[in-house]
Amino acid sequence: MTITFYDLCGRDSKRFSPYGWRTRMALAHKGLDYTLELVKFTEKDKIAFSGQPLVPVIRDGERVIHDSWVIAEHLEDTYPQRPSLFGSAEGRGMAKAINSFVNLTVQPLLAPLIVADVVAHVDAADSDYFVSSREKRFGKALPEVQVGREETVEGFRKALEPIRIVVKDQPFIGGVAATYADYALFGTLQWARCTSGFRVVAADDPIHAWFERVLDLHNGVGRGEPAAV
Amino acid sequence: MTITFYDLCGRDSKRFSPYGWRTRMALAHKGLDYTLELVKFTEKDKIAFSGQPLVPVIRDGERVIHDSWVIAEHLEDTYPQRPSLFGSAEGRGMAKAINSFVNLTVQPLLAPLIVADVVAHVDAADSDYFVSSREKRFGKALPEVQVGREETVEGFRKALEPIRIVVKDQPFIGGVAATYADYALFGTLQWARCTSGFRVVAADDPIHAWFERVLDLHNGVGRGEPAAV
Repeated sequence: MTITFYDLCGRDSKRFSPYGWRTRMALAHKGLDYTLELVKFTEKDKIAFSGQPLVPVIRDGERVIHDSWVIAEHLEDTYPQRPSLFGSAEGRGMAKAINSFVNLTVQPLLAPLIVADVVAHVDAADSDYFVSSREKRFGKALPEVQVGREETVEGFRKALEPIRIVVKDQPFIGGVAATYADYALFGTLQWARCTSGFRVVAADDPIHAWFERVLDLHNGVGRGEPAAV
Repeated sequence: MTITFYDLCGRDSKRFSPYGWRTRMALAHKGLDYTLELVKFTEKDKIAFSGQPLVPVIRDGERVIHDSWVIAEHLEDTYPQRPSLFGSAEGRGMAKAINSFVNLTVQPLLAPLIVADVVAHVDAADSDYFVSSREKRFGKALPEVQVGREETVEGFRKALEPIRIVVKDQPFIGGVAATYADYALFGTLQWARCTSGFRVVAADDPIHAWFERVLDLHNGVGRGEPAAV
């Protein structure tokens, strides 16, 4: 059985999708080999077989799965002999709550801080699509969205407190070993690291030290993607 | 070894502390017997031995522990042969993140919706203390704090979405069995149930159905405390 992983890519094959990173880390955690297919924003035809327009998508044998959370559950259930993404049945439900907390609170606070910086990393073929769709979403020109971010970043940092409380005392959210709860937040911060030179987390924040630890996991797969400067 | 549990009480020994309820549920989950000591807001001398002024506190043999989260960890570590509060080491860290999410996001959004209703359930001896300390916290008269709550309750309900996403598909946050992640949010909603007739969660909300399930746990310990009307 061969897994094919369809992930978003930007300019020069750069990979910065927060949800793509969750899947990439989950596959690395499980130690699963896969064939990679890169998909630009305007290449949705490449994943039309999945019946919806969003990456990440994986094809695992006959099965096609989209949505990074559903992919994580599929990998856990299909490869139970590999390292667990959740640690226990209880951990799966809790990780889902944390995953949703990141989606609903953290990601929306981060997006306006860096969205204009992302443009430089989008493939030229996608640039018009990306800018117009995001300007429509934010209701203003993208550079304007970022105005005042030196102040608004504080609200983003404050939103990370439920995770900070945990990782200030232990290496990962689940203790000594990383789990999908870590990858959920990691994907979002990796999106920022790969696309923006703006420091979204302070250097002395326990979240920063935790993020550096996750960058080192699985032979440094996270660190292998260059940071934006 | 005998455990003594010091919990807040209001008028007619009513118990509504959100943090006290977390400990009460954790003790019930572990099936541990204990001696109960009720403490009014103005009876802080009763827990002075703990070196700080807040309930819940437990004395377990020679050990004195305060802070509901720390108490939960103590119970898990001291009574490992009893049903686990976290399900796994990974679950403990994730539960801590969820516990902090409730403290930092859910509880502050709920408090202004019902704080004036709480007054009627505070012991007469505590009433002046409670009203003046809360008016100082909110910067206005308590009835004014609740003005417009039919609209502001929507923000509170929206904040529950990370938990709603989980419990709409399974009985408890951790799956088929309740864990401390459930008790963290339960305590906050139980505080509202016991002190206010205002409906903070809609009847058709999956959170409501989940809350009813937690009320039934451990021989209905939660349901045994009368709801305010």
